Formats: sequence, C-alpha cells, structure tokens
Amino acid sequence: MSFFNRREVTVEWGDCDPAGIVFYPRYFAMFDASTAALFAAALGYKKFEMLGRYGIIGIPMVDTGAKFLVPSRFGDVISIESHVASFQRSSFKIAHQVFRGETLAIEAHETRVWAARDPDDPTRIKGVAIPDEVKAKL
Amino acid sequence: MSFFNRREVTVEWGDCDPAGIVFYPRYFAMFDASTAALFAAALGYKKFEMLGRYGIIGIPMVDTGAKFLVPSRFGDVISIESHVASFQRSSFKIAHQVFRGETLAIEAHETRVWAARDPDDPTRIKGVAIPDEVKAKL
Amino acid sequence: MSFFNRREVTVEWGDCDPAGIVFYPRYFAMFDASTAALFAAALGYKKFEMLGRYGIIGIPMVDTGAKFLVPSRFGDVISIESHVASFQRSSFKIAHQVFRGETLAIEAHETRVWAARDPDDPTRIKGVAIPDEVKAKL
Amino acid sequence: MSFFNRREVTVEWGDCDPAGIVFYPRYFAMFDASTAALFAAALGYKKFEMLGRYGIIGIPMVDTGAKFLVPSRFGDVISIESHVASFQRSSFKIAHQVFRGETLAIEAHETRVWAARDPDDPTRIKGVAIPDEVKAKL
Repeated sequence: MSFFNRREVTVEWGDCDPAGIVFYPRYFAMFDASTAALFAAALGYKKFEMLGRYGIIGIPMVDTGAKFLVPSRFGDVISIESHVASFQRSSFKIAHQVFRGETLAIEAHETRVWAARDPDDPTRIKGVAIPDEVKAKL
Repeated sequence: MSFFNRREVTVEWGDCDPAGIVFYPRYFAMFDASTAALFAAALGYKKFEMLGRYGIIGIPMVDTGAKFLVPSRFGDVISIESHVASFQRSSFKIAHQVFRGETLAIEAHETRVWAARDPDDPTRIKGVAIPDEVKAKL
Repeated sequence: MSFFNRREVTVEWGDCDPAGIVFYPRYFAMFDASTAALFAAALGYKKFEMLGRYGIIGIPMVDTGAKFLVPSRFGDVISIESHVASFQRSSFKIAHQVFRGETLAIEAHETRVWAARDPDDPTRIKGVAIPDEVKAKL
Repeated sequence: MSFFNRREVTVEWGDCDPAGIVFYPRYFAMFDASTAALFAAALGYKKFEMLGRYGIIGIPMVDTGAKFLVPSRFGDVISIESHVASFQRSSFKIAHQVFRGETLAIEAHETRVWAARDPDDPTRIKGVAIPDEVKAKL
C-alpha cells in the first residue's frame, strides 16, 4: 500500500503565460517539489537531510510525461496528489494527479534514479540501491 | 517530408540545480522555445505574428514527455533538433532531440492544440482547424 | 498605518543553483507572489479578480532592488513580510523583508504602476489612478 | 578601461506573463547569464572552468537593482550590454543596459562576491580576494 501525499499550490501570475494559463514547464517544477514533499512526508525529514543521510546527490529524472486535461490560470488553487507507483533496485516511479476543484486537470508520471557521485569519476553520477527503509516507508 | 529546425542553447548556471546539472523543467522551457523557433523558421515570421495572423491565442500543450539519457551541466552547449511528427485537424505532434556533442542526450515529444478563444465563452479556449498553408510549410 | 502580510515559503530544490543556494531571480518571483498575496489579504479577493474589478492589466514593475544578507538553501522555510511603503497617484512602493528564522536575510523594495491598456493604442499600457478604496485598505 | 560584452536575447513566450510582457524576474536570470558571458568573453573560458581554476564556488549576488523603462514582449530581440563598473578586494559591481532597438529599456546594477567555501565550515561561503589577472582582463 503506497503512501500518498497531497499538497495545495496557488497558481501565481508568474507561473502563467500570455494566454493567461500556466506555462506548462512550471508544472514540472511543481511536480519536482511534490516529489520532495512526498518523501519528506513519508520519511519525516526533508530532502536536504535525505541526501546527506543516504550519501546521494539527488534523485534525477530519467523519464517523465504529463497529460494536460484542463488548464489553470493565476489565482487558482490546485491540489497535487503524489505517490510512488513502483520501486526498482535503484530507480522508482512516481505518479502525480492534479485536481482543480473536483476535476482531474493533469496526470503525470516520473521515473527517477537514486543517484550518488560515481566514486571512479566524481564528475559523473550513477544509480545506487535504494535503502530498504526508504522503500518500506513509501 | 518534414521541416527540421536546429538551434544551439547554452546551459546557464541558473538552469542548473544543486547537483550541478540542468533542472529538468528548464528543458521543457527550452523545448517550448524550440517549437516556436521551428514554426518561425518554417513560416518566415515569429510566433507573435503567427498568433495575430491566424487569430489564435496560443498552441497549448496537451501531452508531453521526455527521456533524459545524458545530463548536461552549466557551460555545455546543447543542440536541439525539432520537427513536426504529424498533424491532425486541430492538433499536432512535435519531436525534439537534444544532442550534447554527438551524443543523443534527450528525446522528447509534444502534442499541442491550435487554440483560439471560444467565441461562446471568451474565458475558455478551444481547438480550431490548423490552416493548410501552415501544414504545407512544416 | 500600513497593512502587513507575512507568508512562509519553502525553498525548493529547483529554486537553488549549483552552489546549493537560492538562485536570486527566484526571490523576485517570490516577491511578485508576495505582492499579490499582500493585495489579496488586504482587499479580500485575489489578483485575478482585482484586475477584472478595476479594469487594469497588471501592476508592472518599474524599479526594484534587493540586498541579500544571508543565503538560503533548499529545505529552508523563509518568511516574507510585505507592506505598501507609499502610494502615489498611479504608482506605489512595496517593501519586502525576508527572514530565515529570526535573521533578516533579504531587504527588497519595488515601485509598481497601476496599469491599464492605453485606449489610444491597445498594444501599449499606461498608468491610471489607483482607486481610493484600494489605498484605504492597504 | 572596462571590457564590454554585448549579447542578443530573444524574448520567449515562456518569459512573458499574462499581460504579454516579460515577467521581470526573468530579466534577472538573463542578467546572471550576461555576467557569466562577460567574464567568459574577457577571460577566454567559461564560468564552469573559471570556478574550477580559481577554486571558487560562485559569484553570488549581494545587492542588485533594475529600472524598467520600456517593456518587451515575446518575439522581441533585446540586446544586453554589460561591463564591470568597479572592483573591490573580494567583490565587484556590474552594470547592464538593455536595449530594445535603439531604445534604452532597462538599467541594472549588481554587486557580487568572489566566493569560496569557508575552510572552517564547508556549509558556509565567504568572499576571497579576486585574482589580479581577472581584474586586469575586465
């Protein structure tokens, strides 16, 4: 049973484009923050501490996509619901659903890697095994 | 035979995250600009003029996705190659390939709508038929 | 006596640069949202409604500046305190103070214009008189 | 005699807000890239190499401001002219002028620090002396 996290985001003027609706790359920034919030809610500490505690440099994106069903405009408060859809050894899938009121507005998915600096070449990053306690809590 | 456009983008410090690589939502902003550049190159005038000439409010995204194969960091110059993969009546698909040197770094796709204000409700937008001359040039 | 508004903002991973601290243009986006929140709190309705109610197109920036005293990094929760420092006929000054815990981290100021489309040339915008009821509530 | 650098920037759809003009925080991101471009042009290598060569973590902003005289909208090509206004021991001032055609559109200034990790506390950063060869070339 997956851990779900839900957060509300106010769409700001600066999130919107000349058509008056959210410039879609801003949604991906919101999703990135939602994934951080999901882990923080499940683990009980923030991403900053998560990276230090497990010796990783980040959880970089390897594959993402989104379907935009209903646009939102500045002043709207949207709700983003996020959970881990699956874990592999060093990667995991996240699903986000965005609601505008009761209406499903966006469906998005992500595949990310649990990544550390490569000890053989510190300018590179590589996937490492996700700790069992992290898997257990999400 | 599709029209291809290629443009070079310098990855800036502000495009990158604490891991030192591009914060992936920034790629979607680059792709949005690449789609505008593709149309401008094919049509011979800019997006601003395109919207006015055809009475549309924009070409909003309905579905997008990207696979990130190789990260880029600030100072890298990446090359983004874009073309229309297909046209439907009021929507179209775009494909972007990002190269870092000779290496394919990202593959992305978009489905967008040729959208005007809804005459029955100006707070809403709706897809309208893509002009034949636009299709012909891309 | 000025109306003050205070809001808390979580610094996200995507707000930060390769040095691990907030990329300073992101603060200006936060300040823009803080000014919108200040007006919404004082007036009782959101910026979207404010624009419609008073027939303005926005409150564009004409002059801004900030002193960055203490950096913040992702995971920090900062507090932004905002108020109108003064009103002129069609422009006004805002002051923002950012606190990280008890520490003053940033001092910023803005001069903005209460702006409508120019009736003589709708592609241009011009300052118009700020309504007295808006001045009274802020 | 100061080194000047000039670069042209296309204002993109995603740089603009619902009023159709550049969302002003985006200008600060452009200025950050212009400062990097100024140093790169004067020194002959990019910011990434500059940081490594001199053992600094960045050139963080301590004070910035801008006057916005003329708005720009998507599709406009603006020209940003940048130079070092003065050097102190571990900080320096930059001036940017933005032109839209022949018209001065924005005047901006920055004070930045030449900053390294604090050897006594690597989670902190501190100003260090700017190398003479850097001063000489700018």
